[in-house]
Amino acid sequence: MMERIPPRSGTAFELRKGQLLTVADPEGEQVSDMVAFHIADTREYISSGRSIDYAGRLFLTTDDILYSNRSNPMLTIVEDEVGRHDFTLTPCSRDTFRIIYGDDDPHHGCQGNLEQALAPWGIGSDDIPIAFNVFMHVAVDSESGQLTVLPPKSKPGQKTVFRAEMDLVVALTACSAGQSNNFRFKPIDYAISG
Amino acid sequence: MMERIPPRSGTAFELRKGQLLTVADPEGEQVSDMVAFHIADTREYISSGRSIDYAGRLFLTTDDILYSNRSNPMLTIVEDEVGRHDFTLTPCSRDTFRIIYGDDDPHHGCQGNLEQALAPWGIGSDDIPIAFNVFMHVAVDSESGQLTVLPPKSKPGQKTVFRAEMDLVVALTACSAGQSNNFRFKPIDYAISG
Repeated sequence: MMERIPPRSGTAFELRKGQLLTVADPEGEQVSDMVAFHIADTREYISSGRSIDYAGRLFLTTDDILYSNRSNPMLTIVEDEVGRHDFTLTPCSRDTFRIIYGDDDPHHGCQGNLEQALAPWGIGSDDIPIAFNVFMHVAVDSESGQLTVLPPKSKPGQKTVFRAEMDLVVALTACSAGQSNNFRFKPIDYAISG
Repeated sequence: MMERIPPRSGTAFELRKGQLLTVADPEGEQVSDMVAFHIADTREYISSGRSIDYAGRLFLTTDDILYSNRSNPMLTIVEDEVGRHDFTLTPCSRDTFRIIYGDDDPHHGCQGNLEQALAPWGIGSDDIPIAFNVFMHVAVDSESGQLTVLPPKSKPGQKTVFRAEMDLVVALTACSAGQSNNFRFKPIDYAISG
């Protein structure tokens, strides 16, 4: 019962505490930017800074918890066939494409797709935090701190599964940045169960 | 004309476009968590995700720009005697001390100090983003992504200087987390000029 997110688009949905969210990469080497908000108060949002701090690691995988800005568990990674994701970079946006890629007429990117998807819940552009970038492969140089965006390690059909630890609004994209997906825009699949 | 921030406390002030902010470590090995907001609309705030993405580096230093969540330059690092800061971790908080240090009666940390300092501008706890942690030394392992908080590289009297690229409210702390400052709480000095 997989739903498909077409290339360069996004979606949002409610996920109840205890439900599982599967995010799958049907063709391989694609990224899905994920953000989450507490449905009862959307000012509580997924926090890279808290999650990374409490894990003591930049790269999160099975059994790691994605915490909110209020230090409450939001999602736990319960299964991870890929094992490499990014939690440092903001969603790609018109500004990303303008500043990094030098595009004159930039695509609205994952940021634009997340904004559109989350508008029905009253969540605006300023409310979108650093995303948990599912399958995004960012290499880090220990000495210089240099970041290199590499093709994702995800092979066709591989997935990562998250369990909701509170009632959530979740938004997901099929990423719009060429660098993130080896310059071929592809869909992302997801399913909700439980 | 240095102002002193006592150990385990914080302050906030307005910084006009073009003014310089000097942050100095009078005794060495101390950290100052810094956040900034656009004074005309405090929903525009300093963004680690945007800044790191546009620099292509985790570690920012001279000539690097601290961008806002709206991708506008907020502060430029114009002089940096230390050269190592962190931009991945949220300010230490009651939750940090509870979760990481196991404290039963935790200090309110930099998060609490930033909240108190920013209250006069109507900036609340949910509005405080990942800070630019001046002088904080976090080692990153390239393979595992493991983060290790080490004593700062700052020697007594060393400083980093920022230029405001818009009118700002800035908050600074003298950090309250033992791990960040080699387990000796110290003051931080700052000066505004121009």
